[in-house]
Amino acid sequence: MQNLKNRDEAVVVFSGGQDSTTCLLWALKKYKKVYAVSFDYGQKHIKELECAKKIAEKFGVEHHILDMSLLNQLAPNSLTRSEMKVDENAPKVGTPNTFVDGRNMVFLTFVAIYAKQKGVSDIITGVSQSDFSGYPDCRDIFIKSLNTTLNLAMDYEFDIITPLMWIDKMETWKLADELGGLDVIRDMTLTCYNGIPGEGCGHCPSCKLRKKGYDLYMEYKKNHNA
Amino acid sequence: MQNLKNRDEAVVVFSGGQDSTTCLLWALKKYKKVYAVSFDYGQKHIKELECAKKIAEKFGVEHHILDMSLLNQLAPNSLTRSEMKVDENAPKVGTPNTFVDGRNMVFLTFVAIYAKQKGVSDIITGVSQSDFSGYPDCRDIFIKSLNTTLNLAMDYEFDIITPLMWIDKMETWKLADELGGLDVIRDMTLTCYNGIPGEGCGHCPSCKLRKKGYDLYMEYKKNHNA
Repeated sequence: MQNLKNRDEAVVVFSGGQDSTTCLLWALKKYKKVYAVSFDYGQKHIKELECAKKIAEKFGVEHHILDMSLLNQLAPNSLTRSEMKVDENAPKVGTPNTFVDGRNMVFLTFVAIYAKQKGVSDIITGVSQSDFSGYPDCRDIFIKSLNTTLNLAMDYEFDIITPLMWIDKMETWKLADELGGLDVIRDMTLTCYNGIPGEGCGHCPSCKLRKKGYDLYMEYKKNHNA
Repeated sequence: MQNLKNRDEAVVVFSGGQDSTTCLLWALKKYKKVYAVSFDYGQKHIKELECAKKIAEKFGVEHHILDMSLLNQLAPNSLTRSEMKVDENAPKVGTPNTFVDGRNMVFLTFVAIYAKQKGVSDIITGVSQSDFSGYPDCRDIFIKSLNTTLNLAMDYEFDIITPLMWIDKMETWKLADELGGLDVIRDMTLTCYNGIPGEGCGHCPSCKLRKKGYDLYMEYKKNHNA
């Protein structure tokens, strides 16, 4: 069966943030053709989708934005509800209020349906267990279970590939640099929960994590004369 | 953990067809409160949703219809595209053209998100391996895998309950009769791929299966003086 697989094409789950853009750069090196799929789920930082669009255009990637507003109707949270304030620190118990129940599962399921229509098996996502931050759907065991479920659901051999699963934010910056995309990631992506591209607001959990990783990598580069 | 579970309420994946309506009747006997969720995915037989609505009203069930038109955009098939003719018999190889890739997975995932919002763990669905008909997402192994994936995705203990998994259409009619709902199922539900409620068109695979089960059950009743 492996021999029949299309190994020239892949679909990237693409938000326009640091992680998924690093995955897009990674995929562009590995595959002849790359598709990128983003989701509009009423996120407050709608600029995220604008960033995604600009990056996809820059790299000439076929890009689709799918409407997933239903997700916000069903699972309200501080990323989509303007009246809710983003948790500045992860809570000791339970998931942070930035967690959208089922988000990665819904996104990956729709990306898989799309991939099968295109005859593509390889699905790339930037989830990371190292940056788990209390999000259960970023864990490796979830991705493995989902992969099995998707293959059973559609009688198809998807491979969900997670280049960032076991690396942290510093190593993600390093990977972006090795892929020749440090500037793109730093200047064009949006990770900030408060919707500010590039350097971001500086105080949301996502900005803190991003900046800490960047500073560590700059330190690393200096020490290694890279 | 089990003791903390809400065992008084359940959510039923509810299409308004024979199987899901039998599950609704089943749930109404087992639980104090039952929610029903239907999906609008541009099915040709939009009457299905009208049937669902009428049945939910009859039983005083809280009923939600969620918009899932995205599914049709991504995975076109003969149930949603009027230019495609329904396969009258299952093909020898592959899935019938009535198969919507990922449909049950998407439906059950959104129902799970909804259930968690309501604090409900038990999800009832009328899929059946006995009526498999080439649909991979009706198999028990898929449901088990999906249950595990959902629990990992949302860090929650869902139980997907499948009262019809191992029974055939004749036994489904028998169950409906035992639940006091033979008339409701026969007259109010819509199973027909061509959108005709009750007895249906009589020649699509779904009507054939339904009628064969009904006739067998009537024969059984006669022989058992039931």
